[in-house]
Amino acid sequence: MTGQPDERQPTGRLTQRLGDRLAFGGDYNPEQWDEAVWKEDDLLMRWAHVNLATVGVFSWALLEPEEGRYDFGWLDAHLDRLHAAGVAVDLATPTASPPPWFTFAHPDAMPVTAEGVRLTHGSRDTYCLAAPAYRQAALRIATALAERYGRHPAVAMWHVHNEYATVCWCDHAAAAFRTWLRARHGTLDALNEAWGTAFWSQRYLSWEEILPPRATQWHRNPGLALDYRRFWSDEALAAYREQRDAIRARTTADRPITTNLMLPGYQVLDLWSFGREVDVVGIDHYPCAPGRDAAADTAFGADRARSFGGGKPWLLIEQGANTVYTGDRTLPKEPGDILRHSLAHIAHGSDGALFFQWRQSKAGAELWHSAMVPHAGPDSRIFREVADTGAALDRLWEVAGSLVRARAAVLHDSDCWWALDGQGLPSASLDYHGELRRAHRALWDAGVTTDFAHPAGPDLSRYRLLVAPALPLLSDAAAESLRAWVHAGGTLLVQHFAGVVDERHHARLGGYPAEPLREALGVRVEEFRPLAAGAVLRLSDGSTSTAWSESLRLTAPAEAVASYTGGMLADRPAVTRHPYGSGTAWYASTRLDAAAYDALVARLLAEAGIRPEIPLPPGVEAIRRHSPSGGPSWLFLLNHTAAPATVQADGHDLLTARPVPAAGLTLPPGGAAVLRQG
Amino acid sequence: MTGQPDERQPTGRLTQRLGDRLAFGGDYNPEQWDEAVWKEDDLLMRWAHVNLATVGVFSWALLEPEEGRYDFGWLDAHLDRLHAAGVAVDLATPTASPPPWFTFAHPDAMPVTAEGVRLTHGSRDTYCLAAPAYRQAALRIATALAERYGRHPAVAMWHVHNEYATVCWCDHAAAAFRTWLRARHGTLDALNEAWGTAFWSQRYLSWEEILPPRATQWHRNPGLALDYRRFWSDEALAAYREQRDAIRARTTADRPITTNLMLPGYQVLDLWSFGREVDVVGIDHYPCAPGRDAAADTAFGADRARSFGGGKPWLLIEQGANTVYTGDRTLPKEPGDILRHSLAHIAHGSDGALFFQWRQSKAGAELWHSAMVPHAGPDSRIFREVADTGAALDRLWEVAGSLVRARAAVLHDSDCWWALDGQGLPSASLDYHGELRRAHRALWDAGVTTDFAHPAGPDLSRYRLLVAPALPLLSDAAAESLRAWVHAGGTLLVQHFAGVVDERHHARLGGYPAEPLREALGVRVEEFRPLAAGAVLRLSDGSTSTAWSESLRLTAPAEAVASYTGGMLADRPAVTRHPYGSGTAWYASTRLDAAAYDALVARLLAEAGIRPEIPLPPGVEAIRRHSPSGGPSWLFLLNHTAAPATVQADGHDLLTARPVPAAGLTLPPGGAAVLRQG
Amino acid sequence: MTGQPDERQPTGRLTQRLGDRLAFGGDYNPEQWDEAVWKEDDLLMRWAHVNLATVGVFSWALLEPEEGRYDFGWLDAHLDRLHAAGVAVDLATPTASPPPWFTFAHPDAMPVTAEGVRLTHGSRDTYCLAAPAYRQAALRIATALAERYGRHPAVAMWHVHNEYATVCWCDHAAAAFRTWLRARHGTLDALNEAWGTAFWSQRYLSWEEILPPRATQWHRNPGLALDYRRFWSDEALAAYREQRDAIRARTTADRPITTNLMLPGYQVLDLWSFGREVDVVGIDHYPCAPGRDAAADTAFGADRARSFGGGKPWLLIEQGANTVYTGDRTLPKEPGDILRHSLAHIAHGSDGALFFQWRQSKAGAELWHSAMVPHAGPDSRIFREVADTGAALDRLWEVAGSLVRARAAVLHDSDCWWALDGQGLPSASLDYHGELRRAHRALWDAGVTTDFAHPAGPDLSRYRLLVAPALPLLSDAAAESLRAWVHAGGTLLVQHFAGVVDERHHARLGGYPAEPLREALGVRVEEFRPLAAGAVLRLSDGSTSTAWSESLRLTAPAEAVASYTGGMLADRPAVTRHPYGSGTAWYASTRLDAAAYDALVARLLAEAGIRPEIPLPPGVEAIRRHSPSGGPSWLFLLNHTAAPATVQADGHDLLTARPVPAAGLTLPPGGAAVLRQG
Repeated sequence: MTGQPDERQPTGRLTQRLGDRLAFGGDYNPEQWDEAVWKEDDLLMRWAHVNLATVGVFSWALLEPEEGRYDFGWLDAHLDRLHAAGVAVDLATPTASPPPWFTFAHPDAMPVTAEGVRLTHGSRDTYCLAAPAYRQAALRIATALAERYGRHPAVAMWHVHNEYATVCWCDHAAAAFRTWLRARHGTLDALNEAWGTAFWSQRYLSWEEILPPRATQWHRNPGLALDYRRFWSDEALAAYREQRDAIRARTTADRPITTNLMLPGYQVLDLWSFGREVDVVGIDHYPCAPGRDAAADTAFGADRARSFGGGKPWLLIEQGANTVYTGDRTLPKEPGDILRHSLAHIAHGSDGALFFQWRQSKAGAELWHSAMVPHAGPDSRIFREVADTGAALDRLWEVAGSLVRARAAVLHDSDCWWALDGQGLPSASLDYHGELRRAHRALWDAGVTTDFAHPAGPDLSRYRLLVAPALPLLSDAAAESLRAWVHAGGTLLVQHFAGVVDERHHARLGGYPAEPLREALGVRVEEFRPLAAGAVLRLSDGSTSTAWSESLRLTAPAEAVASYTGGMLADRPAVTRHPYGSGTAWYASTRLDAAAYDALVARLLAEAGIRPEIPLPPGVEAIRRHSPSGGPSWLFLLNHTAAPATVQADGHDLLTARPVPAAGLTLPPGGAAVLRQG
Repeated sequence: MTGQPDERQPTGRLTQRLGDRLAFGGDYNPEQWDEAVWKEDDLLMRWAHVNLATVGVFSWALLEPEEGRYDFGWLDAHLDRLHAAGVAVDLATPTASPPPWFTFAHPDAMPVTAEGVRLTHGSRDTYCLAAPAYRQAALRIATALAERYGRHPAVAMWHVHNEYATVCWCDHAAAAFRTWLRARHGTLDALNEAWGTAFWSQRYLSWEEILPPRATQWHRNPGLALDYRRFWSDEALAAYREQRDAIRARTTADRPITTNLMLPGYQVLDLWSFGREVDVVGIDHYPCAPGRDAAADTAFGADRARSFGGGKPWLLIEQGANTVYTGDRTLPKEPGDILRHSLAHIAHGSDGALFFQWRQSKAGAELWHSAMVPHAGPDSRIFREVADTGAALDRLWEVAGSLVRARAAVLHDSDCWWALDGQGLPSASLDYHGELRRAHRALWDAGVTTDFAHPAGPDLSRYRLLVAPALPLLSDAAAESLRAWVHAGGTLLVQHFAGVVDERHHARLGGYPAEPLREALGVRVEEFRPLAAGAVLRLSDGSTSTAWSESLRLTAPAEAVASYTGGMLADRPAVTRHPYGSGTAWYASTRLDAAAYDALVARLLAEAGIRPEIPLPPGVEAIRRHSPSGGPSWLFLLNHTAAPATVQADGHDLLTARPVPAAGLTLPPGGAAVLRQG
Repeated sequence: MTGQPDERQPTGRLTQRLGDRLAFGGDYNPEQWDEAVWKEDDLLMRWAHVNLATVGVFSWALLEPEEGRYDFGWLDAHLDRLHAAGVAVDLATPTASPPPWFTFAHPDAMPVTAEGVRLTHGSRDTYCLAAPAYRQAALRIATALAERYGRHPAVAMWHVHNEYATVCWCDHAAAAFRTWLRARHGTLDALNEAWGTAFWSQRYLSWEEILPPRATQWHRNPGLALDYRRFWSDEALAAYREQRDAIRARTTADRPITTNLMLPGYQVLDLWSFGREVDVVGIDHYPCAPGRDAAADTAFGADRARSFGGGKPWLLIEQGANTVYTGDRTLPKEPGDILRHSLAHIAHGSDGALFFQWRQSKAGAELWHSAMVPHAGPDSRIFREVADTGAALDRLWEVAGSLVRARAAVLHDSDCWWALDGQGLPSASLDYHGELRRAHRALWDAGVTTDFAHPAGPDLSRYRLLVAPALPLLSDAAAESLRAWVHAGGTLLVQHFAGVVDERHHARLGGYPAEPLREALGVRVEEFRPLAAGAVLRLSDGSTSTAWSESLRLTAPAEAVASYTGGMLADRPAVTRHPYGSGTAWYASTRLDAAAYDALVARLLAEAGIRPEIPLPPGVEAIRRHSPSGGPSWLFLLNHTAAPATVQADGHDLLTARPVPAAGLTLPPGGAAVLRQG
């Protein structure tokens, strides 16, 4: 280990190197251009207040043009040039894109699909993460880079790999899976018991018989399927840790090490684990809808990034200058979005705003992906907005390192996601991320800053309200943790199909959900009654619901807040409330319509004593960042509407460098303010 | 052979062993539970009047934990326990789920898709039915079971395999296909002629050149495709017969042998052939829609089961306690459905009602599949209804062995299904099972009990009305059989695209359909005119039609009952009627709308002199079971509506043990009665 | 080489052999029938005025029943018989359907999909075009046929292969691709530069590392993907040329050699290249919609056929007698369509009308494909209409060899199609053939005869109007060619997303489209703004648009003819007009609604001084064929409506053999006339 421990926030070690500024910049691939362009880059980066460039993400073929032969000269030159220009470097290991020579020398390291198709070179990420040849080659190039640039003055941060995301079903993966299973289950008997192999005659006699979930005839064993998701996430984390440790040993402690996670898009990873192993949570974010939906999407991703890091600042490593991905087409952003989207991430805790990429590629697979400098060049709306955003972020330097605090949280557990992503479920309407987004959106619409929390997490006590929109899998420990948290005064909402299996994917018997959560909720679910697609139920309070219903029995003092009105469940409880200890536990056994769900969330917030930062007109978002040590706070105000909006608040607006007038602050359409208060 | 021939109905040999009761119970997998649960099982089975348990379906890995080493001790104990508790056993061979040791010892026995993907272990049915290693292993375990339990007092029936359904395209399948082809065609010249290999230069020079219908560039040869379906069905039947014969040689004649066919879902099998080889037709039935559609679906499946067995009683081996499969979700049943669905099958000829499964799995691929004892345990609506149903069936003991008689039949021929399931057809609207369901449903809605019949079947003389909704393939013999049947007084309806190819899939030349059916119908179809998707035609009688039209010429005395009104076919016949000999032959050259089709069926019933059992309010079904020897009959009345319904009938209601009041019998919503009459 | 150069049009060499008649007939597969049928064929062909039969397309297995052993006896007999009956032969090489013996002797020659699935025999086209064994076998059989029949008096034309269309990704294809790449790029450095392999670390160190675009993890390199499309088209052309040259050396010059291209369906070929290498452009055409859409579809395919041949006559080699393919079903034709569809092709330049096939197959994969003699036999509407059509064409003999002249053209470049058929594009609404059809349809609806032209073609000067509906890829040379053409007086319309990449698929920097086209248009596109699916924009002139928008800047004297009205682009130009030199260049940056597009095309036609042949009622098409040497012309009038239509014109109607009355010519519904004028 080199260097001394640093007491600053992890991103602080980065922003300090940037001269105590927020990070601003993007992926920089100078190897795709020539010297004339590099000179223009120097000029334009200064113009745009760029202070951080991510370099090397796709450079393996240039850095190691043949196996074991390195060519660092060109990179030396770029790093020196950037350093001279005052631009720090987030130096990436290029391991997401092995060169053709690697893939041809190691055909066994190429990924294989569940159907047995071995993929070929010609794109990126053409490797199996579990293949020894790949892991060795990746570690070698990462080590060589760290060896050479560990103390290079330009390097301010390390960026391992790029967007860990692909899965493989090959024989290397199978071997690694077996090793992982031995560690998890100990014995084959324990594995057979955990997976319930007595069903469908699946009992394993030897470890060698176990395969990844490759193409098979009917449904797969859900225990195996779930363990494979867990294993793969752990395998990716191991690959990250190998590179991280090699770099750590060759760099200084003030250069944080991270990787870029994809949020709110969902990688095949348990991001809680990654959050524990990176120095700074770094994310990539591309909204999947325009307008106000993009803002909600940003909040959803950013709140997750902050939560995975334990509440500390984090960093937006990639966004698109003009990119809104919507299925089969890429929509453009509206004027002002580049600034407001950047501020939205910073409001939620990011200590900067980076882009993919600096200059739009002229060739290759992503030549239509937007960039800070578009094909049209600097004489363009996009570059002008990028430069204005860089200038604006400069004025926010004092925000760096400050914290966001939430008293409400949505429960998130990758095991639950993976359990709902399986086969043979009672209904296709059980959509893990759809339910998480819905719960988060209701709290966001209510103006409340929201964390995500793990149901067995250590820090539940910091919250007054927990919402569990999708919690099918629940360990005994988590059930007890939630029970105790309610008993101690918390307000909990649990939604349908909760606590139905344990961590081995064994059903909870005697009625759902798992005890002792059942005790806290005061309910026993006797029977699921999924609804037909499109079917709508009417509840006793006039609201409606869809997708699902359940036959419940209550234990006093639990009471029905809304009941079903027709069919077998007529007059039976639909939504229940249970005073328990010093707290209250709610259960919603059906999928409430939007208005009813919002009303329920409003009632829960009132019971939990949680209010928005300030009263706000519709479509305006307010989030506060706090000094870690109790100094001033900064209130971010973001007008996501196409009309002006007036807000009553005081303080000093860092963007305009003016105090808020007594009559209040009027934000233009799509406009923003950052008020220093206190 | 052991034992003496038994004059009773095949199911009678079973119900006699059950103490002359209807069978009631389900799949029982005690190996997934522990002793405490077994003790509760004994208690709950008695409570629920269970008298038959299907054991061993998924037990291969426990029965033969290593190749050639058997462990029967645990099964001995369960059979003894069940016998002591008065529960008879339907003992299954576990051959649908080879254990991992088998699949790893014999990788060549794993199934291969048409695209060449070799499937792996991890589900069930991971074998190729034609692989010698599989067939030998299956025969070995079946023989060992029969050897040990052939005369065990608990065993009342044998259950070979489970739901034969999977297809394989591997080299073993290819070899077996060639053997089958030699037997069918004799010479390569005959095969080349039958398949029309002069087209597309497909002439085969040697048998080795012939492959299963694997992935290829464009359409496949339809003769090859059709023969592969026939071959595969025969291969599955051969696999069944091997096990059956091994068991037959080791058990007594009063223990019938069967397998569970999937109805009305469609296996890849010619179920007429299976009907001839099983002692009792056994089916699994899971409705694919709720409410009245589930009842129609039950009738459709049950009438097929009865027909495949030649009209004799049969047995419902699997149903779901709370399971309605609808594409992407499983809907629950309504209160009362467990009883009424069970009675519906019995009304149509089943001598009992079994479930998959007794106790809902706590782990494995089907843990969400409902069961007689749900996860919530016996203190549940489902178990209470199951127990009530068991009690009700006890009161119907006298019905066992009685027969259902139909005078109307829908023609069904697997060759026709397979021909319409091919490539290159004139329209995607040619839906074999859709048309069969529609014809059956119209007769069911009219209150008429309906059989299915093969167009070349030996027993057509028992019917007064035959409906041929989808008969594209017709042999010369079948065409003559139908002609003669009409001539002798039958009423026949043939629908469009009929008799267009012979059994080699050669087109009928000179006008469709095949002679001499053309003579009986008095029509010559000169040209098909398929309709665009969504197009609607208006006919001269004010009705409408879709999907298809044809240019017909009539031979007197055939006459148009309805004509086309527009386009090239204006004033040309659409629906025709032809008095022929003592009978009448109708032809519908287009797909009539629902009302017109129902009206046509009503007219056909009137012409054929067929009426419902009794006058009925809408939504109430009535079916009669007859004593084989002329004693009393039993009229089942099923109210499939959500309102009470009053029926005028006399007799003694076995369910309530009361005579029908003079004012008539009022069935509650979803209620039923079983009246002994005569 | 044999024979002397012939000054006649290439089709003239054919029609001369037919006795100076238009060709009429179809594919003839006598090997699928017996002698009785052959005798009927002779009779019916005479009855139907058939003078040309395509023979041998699927006869490989009979001609070469074992590798290297030929059996020509049966073919000798058919050719002699046809010759005796006065039917000339279009003799096909059977290389699209290798027999089973070939595919089993050369498993390495079977095609492989991008996912690695090796296809099997059982259909047709089961070979890899690049496999040496296939190429050798194909050349051998073609040579043997030419050797035997090169001067056979029956043979009037040679028909190489059938519908080149399939693609392969196997190792033979990879090897051939590498050879092609060496020829195109010269060095690996040039290839790496062209493909932009610096992105995603794809730099190739050796040619052996390059693979076809097989299954990979994410997007493929667009340069590689584009080159593979080019390579494959060239490979198919090389395969054609090999056979053509072998035949040329063994036949006489008055027997043209061709292949049948599929139009307007799209083969994987650059048809400009094929147009240069065939003696006569021959096409297959199956309309994909009924009614007037079928007529537009015919014009679209026929105008392309004529254009690919450089404006000379061409030949319709296949059409269906009763076949309109619409996705999942085959619709029938209406009475009169057989004649009118045949005339429509001839009107657009075809020197005849052939069908697939003479007699409907009784077996095999295409037994439902319609034919001149249907299953029902000659006593049928279809055969009567076929015979009437043959008689009508006989009366048009003088039209053979005459030319069609167009002054408007739509730009077509296969590179543009392939570029828009790639991955990672900004919007799924960029539909190459959809846009080409739309532009062509607007001109067709306006009554204007239209060619297709290559943007870098040598003959642009013959046109007054060029429309570029989809021109994403534009070389420097083509950009300059278009600029100069406008400057010299042309009227050009360029539509959105034009000139965005060069021929290497490198983006145009500094603003789109490529200079100097930008100069001619007077626009600089700074930013794409694709629209959401379903989104509709309103323009300043009241029209609407969809799919796409762009941020433009204009250079005087360019002016906005219509502007955007909302959002960021409000008051910015949408459709622009730029007087340039002696011409005018228009740019449409969004996809105009149908009415606006038609109005724009009308204005362009007026500016270009192009009018229809004669004033016409709606739904009537008029096209003129001209004598090559300035004699009379023939005006084809086609009434595509279901009502009578009266046209003012003079001349002598060849179909009725009567002069046009003074009151004008009244065409019956679906009727036609062919007027000799001048």
